Amino acid sequence: MIPEEILLRNIRGLSSCLEEERMMLPNGAGHFPSMDSMRELMRLVREVVFPDFFDKQRESTKIREYFIGIGIERLYSLLKREISHALRFNHERGANDVDTESRELALRFIDTLPEIKRLLYTDVRAMYDNDPAVDNYGEVILCYPVVLAMVNYRVAHSLLKLGIPVIPRILTELAHSMTGIDIHPGAEIGEYFAIDHGTGVVIGETCIIGNHVTLYQGVTLGAKNFSLDSHGHPVNVPRHPIIEDNVTVYSNSSILGRITVGHDSIIGGNVWLTYSVPPESRILQRKAVATTFTDGLGI
Amino acid sequence: MIPEEILLRNIRGLSSCLEEERMMLPNGAGHFPSMDSMRELMRLVREVVFPDFFDKQRESTKIREYFIGIGIERLYSLLKREISHALRFNHERGANDVDTESRELALRFIDTLPEIKRLLYTDVRAMYDNDPAVDNYGEVILCYPVVLAMVNYRVAHSLLKLGIPVIPRILTELAHSMTGIDIHPGAEIGEYFAIDHGTGVVIGETCIIGNHVTLYQGVTLGAKNFSLDSHGHPVNVPRHPIIEDNVTVYSNSSILGRITVGHDSIIGGNVWLTYSVPPESRILQRKAVATTFTDGLGI
Amino acid sequence: MIPEEILLRNIRGLSSCLEEERMMLPNGAGHFPSMDSMRELMRLVREVVFPDFFDKQRESTKIREYFIGIGIERLYSLLKREISHALRFNHERGANDVDTESRELALRFIDTLPEIKRLLYTDVRAMYDNDPAVDNYGEVILCYPVVLAMVNYRVAHSLLKLGIPVIPRILTELAHSMTGIDIHPGAEIGEYFAIDHGTGVVIGETCIIGNHVTLYQGVTLGAKNFSLDSHGHPVNVPRHPIIEDNVTVYSNSSILGRITVGHDSIIGGNVWLTYSVPPESRILQRKAVATTFTDGLGI
Amino acid sequence: MIPEEILLRNIRGLSSCLEEERMMLPNGAGHFPSMDSMRELMRLVREVVFPDFFDKQRESTKIREYFIGIGIERLYSLLKREISHALRFNHERGANDVDTESRELALRFIDTLPEIKRLLYTDVRAMYDNDPAVDNYGEVILCYPVVLAMVNYRVAHSLLKLGIPVIPRILTELAHSMTGIDIHPGAEIGEYFAIDHGTGVVIGETCIIGNHVTLYQGVTLGAKNFSLDSHGHPVNVPRHPIIEDNVTVYSNSSILGRITVGHDSIIGGNVWLTYSVPPESRILQRKAVATTFTDGLGI
Amino acid sequence: MIPEEILLRNIRGLSSCLEEERMMLPNGAGHFPSMDSMRELMRLVREVVFPDFFDKQRESTKIREYFIGIGIERLYSLLKREISHALRFNHERGANDVDTESRELALRFIDTLPEIKRLLYTDVRAMYDNDPAVDNYGEVILCYPVVLAMVNYRVAHSLLKLGIPVIPRILTELAHSMTGIDIHPGAEIGEYFAIDHGTGVVIGETCIIGNHVTLYQGVTLGAKNFSLDSHGHPVNVPRHPIIEDNVTVYSNSSILGRITVGHDSIIGGNVWLTYSVPPESRILQRKAVATTFTDGLGI
Amino acid sequence: MIPEEILLRNIRGLSSCLEEERMMLPNGAGHFPSMDSMRELMRLVREVVFPDFFDKQRESTKIREYFIGIGIERLYSLLKREISHALRFNHERGANDVDTESRELALRFIDTLPEIKRLLYTDVRAMYDNDPAVDNYGEVILCYPVVLAMVNYRVAHSLLKLGIPVIPRILTELAHSMTGIDIHPGAEIGEYFAIDHGTGVVIGETCIIGNHVTLYQGVTLGAKNFSLDSHGHPVNVPRHPIIEDNVTVYSNSSILGRITVGHDSIIGGNVWLTYSVPPESRILQRKAVATTFTDGLGI
Repeated sequence: MIPEEILLRNIRGLSSCLEEERMMLPNGAGHFPSMDSMRELMRLVREVVFPDFFDKQRESTKIREYFIGIGIERLYSLLKREISHALRFNHERGANDVDTESRELALRFIDTLPEIKRLLYTDVRAMYDNDPAVDNYGEVILCYPVVLAMVNYRVAHSLLKLGIPVIPRILTELAHSMTGIDIHPGAEIGEYFAIDHGTGVVIGETCIIGNHVTLYQGVTLGAKNFSLDSHGHPVNVPRHPIIEDNVTVYSNSSILGRITVGHDSIIGGNVWLTYSVPPESRILQRKAVATTFTDGLGI
Repeated sequence: MIPEEILLRNIRGLSSCLEEERMMLPNGAGHFPSMDSMRELMRLVREVVFPDFFDKQRESTKIREYFIGIGIERLYSLLKREISHALRFNHERGANDVDTESRELALRFIDTLPEIKRLLYTDVRAMYDNDPAVDNYGEVILCYPVVLAMVNYRVAHSLLKLGIPVIPRILTELAHSMTGIDIHPGAEIGEYFAIDHGTGVVIGETCIIGNHVTLYQGVTLGAKNFSLDSHGHPVNVPRHPIIEDNVTVYSNSSILGRITVGHDSIIGGNVWLTYSVPPESRILQRKAVATTFTDGLGI
Repeated sequence: MIPEEILLRNIRGLSSCLEEERMMLPNGAGHFPSMDSMRELMRLVREVVFPDFFDKQRESTKIREYFIGIGIERLYSLLKREISHALRFNHERGANDVDTESRELALRFIDTLPEIKRLLYTDVRAMYDNDPAVDNYGEVILCYPVVLAMVNYRVAHSLLKLGIPVIPRILTELAHSMTGIDIHPGAEIGEYFAIDHGTGVVIGETCIIGNHVTLYQGVTLGAKNFSLDSHGHPVNVPRHPIIEDNVTVYSNSSILGRITVGHDSIIGGNVWLTYSVPPESRILQRKAVATTFTDGLGI
Repeated sequence: MIPEEILLRNIRGLSSCLEEERMMLPNGAGHFPSMDSMRELMRLVREVVFPDFFDKQRESTKIREYFIGIGIERLYSLLKREISHALRFNHERGANDVDTESRELALRFIDTLPEIKRLLYTDVRAMYDNDPAVDNYGEVILCYPVVLAMVNYRVAHSLLKLGIPVIPRILTELAHSMTGIDIHPGAEIGEYFAIDHGTGVVIGETCIIGNHVTLYQGVTLGAKNFSLDSHGHPVNVPRHPIIEDNVTVYSNSSILGRITVGHDSIIGGNVWLTYSVPPESRILQRKAVATTFTDGLGI
Repeated sequence: MIPEEILLRNIRGLSSCLEEERMMLPNGAGHFPSMDSMRELMRLVREVVFPDFFDKQRESTKIREYFIGIGIERLYSLLKREISHALRFNHERGANDVDTESRELALRFIDTLPEIKRLLYTDVRAMYDNDPAVDNYGEVILCYPVVLAMVNYRVAHSLLKLGIPVIPRILTELAHSMTGIDIHPGAEIGEYFAIDHGTGVVIGETCIIGNHVTLYQGVTLGAKNFSLDSHGHPVNVPRHPIIEDNVTVYSNSSILGRITVGHDSIIGGNVWLTYSVPPESRILQRKAVATTFTDGLGI
Repeated sequence: MIPEEILLRNIRGLSSCLEEERMMLPNGAGHFPSMDSMRELMRLVREVVFPDFFDKQRESTKIREYFIGIGIERLYSLLKREISHALRFNHERGANDVDTESRELALRFIDTLPEIKRLLYTDVRAMYDNDPAVDNYGEVILCYPVVLAMVNYRVAHSLLKLGIPVIPRILTELAHSMTGIDIHPGAEIGEYFAIDHGTGVVIGETCIIGNHVTLYQGVTLGAKNFSLDSHGHPVNVPRHPIIEDNVTVYSNSSILGRITVGHDSIIGGNVWLTYSVPPESRILQRKAVATTFTDGLGI
């Protein structure tokens, strides 16, 4: 047991609100989406989108349909509940008030699933076409972190466009934690999108990415700077790059600001790029120098 | 069943100690902290530090205090047990010998919790002020990997200063695994510290970081080289950078060695910096070159 | 409940095969290794390889042998089952057909365990010798992500050499997800291999790495480009670097293409290297430039 | 896979409603209390009622209060939700309709907890006073099935008196399954009630039991017969015995019908009693007969 | 650690086969059904038989069919695997040898499910008609132990008739453990069968029970004695009672031997009956005696 | 949330100690054995005693020994910890004080395991010889509740003889809850003991039972009455029956008081026996009477 004096001193220290803390207290009534539900949500999406890769028994057409039907039903019921928490997160609204809205939003999301599926298959295809080390699609779907990241991103993006708060960001952060790939749900990404290896990739909120674009690990599509509003909070304006069709960016390059990388360009690795480049550009870091020293890095 | 000959051959092969293995055998009696306990420890810390963000029912002041009180009690009892394992890890000491010491250390840690909380709220504030993509604090606390990394680091740093072995490093590696942010518990970090995206950030053991510092993904604050002691093991001396107040370092830059980055400086991305720079510096990578080629990267 | 019309529309949308999907359907009969089994497999390997670091009771030599014996037995029985799934993944083969083959392959893997153990102890030694922040081996084995990554890689590499499909890649991707270190199971890596921090490291399929090589976080040993076969799929040829003995590569550098980095070389950080360098080279990024601006990054 | 013909035949056979089934379909909308919640509910009740026996750390008065406070809060929130399901079980009512009612009922139940606690301590005392084999109260509270049965019964009885459907019966059936003691929540039972061993005890819905009553295993306090209403369903009238104060009933006796066993009576074992007996009665089975036979039971 | 001498002594003591043990060693190759699978099997059966009582979302006819379809598919796949273990339990047979047989038997069981369902609804109806304390069928299905016992019995009986070893007995013992009702899978039981309270009911292997029979708690339908075969093992012949239609047996009565209780009879409680009785009999225990004594039971 | 007034009222009501409660507060420091550990303990005992029936891979003699060795080691380490809790339950003793004693007691228990195993195999044999419905030993070991009850009893009896408090009773109550068989750990039971069906069997603390005794369900071997000590607590003296060799007792009979049932006797079912009977007795309930009535039980 903690001596009572030490216990009470620290309860007091921890439960009396700090000034910073008071500023951050949520307005609503302690509603936030549950992490476990978010993981379950994504599991269900993967099951309905790749039904042949997540259960060993779905060979008969009949049973395949059954699984998809039940998957959709579960997904709907889970999503409706979590949306209702999200709508009350940081907003003082009653349970009844958000009920119809949650139901409506969940149904509208369900209707985007076939298109999400179509896009994801183009991403799998792009990864396969890009990697000499793989000779079947199944390995891509089962093992490649980019697939996990893209499923979460495409679902999060769809939810964000429906105006649902908080959930989209949680979904992309789940993928970020598992893959090291951090795609903001607000980014717009075209078809046949590939990321190889992926660790350290960052794609900012206002990025616009065309079709057939490929990124390697450590690539940042970020902001260069931002202005502050009158409360000192940064203003949310378009501030990330536009990447046109058929662009490839090699590992660890940073492309920053509202610039445009023209179609069919190749950006080499470890490049710091803060200005627009025309279509079909080839951009490389300056050649490194050979030097001499004798001990350790010895500079 | 494995044929008995193959089984016995490999049991022999695996259980007879290699020369390297013998050198590494722990001195103590098989005591090491449990990973599950480490995760539970951090869950409890998050609960007492952000009580309004981890349980849906803590609205009444009374119950809020109760939860914090029980959280502290559990934290204490778990920590005491794990400290006693850590004290015996690699040291031959008896159970009774470490008992009083573990108790004492756990209590002293409890007394640092209110200050840890205060610092963490400054970090949350810094992240919020830094990110145009967010419009409420709750989203930062719930979703941002930097918050998870900083809670683990600030707890680990506090435990390290109390002289507790092994546990601090396990805590920061847990955060490393989940966020890609690797902060050594020995680093000194001031208030209002922000890391955006975070994957690939490395902050070395002897770093000293001021207030209001912001890092982006992939930034390394590392060592350049080190000398060896008479056993060939590297000597542990100050060897990582000092970053003064109000510095920002952009993505993928490496700042190495016991150098000083003066206050109010900005270090651009993808920079390799191994010398001190004065206050208010602006350091950028040399401009990349445009080139021409026709097939693949084709250099 | 979802209104029946919406439900049926989306079941139809999701269960009718897309053109891309049809192309990707696995040939075999829904057989793929289970993720949970893969995690259990690696847990068993760690237990037999580091028996003194994963159970608090294995002090007596007798019981140590018992644990290793049972660990091997479990490992064998689990691996045999998963290999039989892997052999049928994407290939139409009957259960009896693969039974003997799976048994044989699992036994041959068991016979490689003592050598895998020997190599891993050299890796632990290399990490220890490389890090001033650590003063005992136990902390390396328990906490360092590189150890987890190397156990998975060395097992995966051994399985790949036996011709077992899919499983090797899943094992290295598991480590990738937990450590941010992405080593292709096809790479050849010598003794005493160290990776510090590790997040963002990528080691490609056809890399050849000598003894006593050290990499830092964010290093890519990758391919520069590749040719396509007549179906438009890239050709799998040697396309990644050869790193000779005693080379160190600092953080965030990219070394690309079938080039050779000569022995005893040091490659500095943030370097983009696409040509061979002779033994004892020292390669550094060109010095960054100091500049002046007044607001944000302000370029 | 099941051949499609067999599959469809049995789906049809199982999903087309039988005549009996149609009669039994619930009126409401698939709402029923969850078994896991029922178990958690009883765990919480035991924790607030016996706080010193279910957690190893509640020694300090302060922390003891905290645990009880949080236990009550959790209990309330769980009970409110389950009551709202119970109110809709078999009744077509909307979510909003039952909301206020559930809240109200849960609060009224909370207010009965101190009296439930008082009664339970009299029961523990009665068991202790009755059993030569035990020498401390802790063993009674931790091990004796009657304690588990009485906690569930006293909670169920309290909920039933508040008019809450379904839940009371589930709670007593949970205890029935674990202890073999089947007490209908409708029974009225006084203070200091003891059941020894308990397996096979049945106490019917309209029983009235005084104070200081003791039952042994296999005792039935049941109904003798019942009349049917116009739909052929049995009429629910007082039909079980009244047992006055200070009565003991020995093992396997059946006491049936709306009869009265007068105070201070002793009913021997294996007795079939269907008529009232005056106070201070002693009732025994007729003496068994000795007989002779040679093989097995040989009658 | 156990001192090595004590450890080895007891390993020897426990691993060297006793004479009794050697006699009992199974002939087959360590194959037996898994308890977890048996529980899952029964969960699946309850789901397809009472689809409206085990999932909150099965309102739409379409989704109801889907659930039943998937339930049957899972049940089949699980049962097939467990039957193959059961067929090898105590019999030396190869994996391929039992494969077709298991598949065949599992399919034949699936075809009995609609009839099992029909019978179970008659049992629920009988319980409802028998109990004044209940006013809806849902409560019977959710709470009454007899329902659990009858589902397990009717499935076990069906499997036994198909000649499947071991599994039937495990299923009825699972129900026995949870309800105290012990029905041998070999017994023949008609429609509309009711058991009230149930603890202690035993129904022997060769019982034949008609329609509309009701038993109360503690009733034994057992054997009186048995002859031994030449190895001293008892001979398995008809040795349990025949209970004709419309019979009621009250609590704790024992009816033993191959006797017949004629239709429309009532057997009172606590009766020991070892001879046949004609239709419409009323059998009661002799009236207990009132006696006098002064202290405890005082006989 | 509960309104604060109601919350505080009930916290007060529940946390202020009742008079009865104060009397029952444990003396020691909140130490009691954990239920989960008790279950794990018995699982380990079953594994070392019946190694061929609880793991599918123990065919090789070598591996069989390994499993038993590790089972014993785990059992010892778990038991030592739980004994140390039990020794402090209700007794104010320090951690160090009980440490050596717990270790000693656990080792002495380990040394009784081979004899416990020998006895259990005689019990399995007795059940097999007694039941015409079974034709292999494996089914007895896997399914029969008496086996579970006897394993728990024989272990509990052994621990009780070593003077270990609380744990023995918890173990037999665990078996009681799962099988309905309630054997006090203090009872002395010989070899080849059989209980058929078992629900409702009660065997009191001071029973002495010979070899080759068989009981049926619902049999009570109980106490008739007891005297009180000066504090009103019943005196613990021999008060349960002595059952000599080769006795069979049929279902639901109660045998009460310190009487002797002579060897080779048969006691029929539903008998109430409170006096000694000589060897080779046959005792039967008086014959029930046939009566007439027309409606329900209608007496």
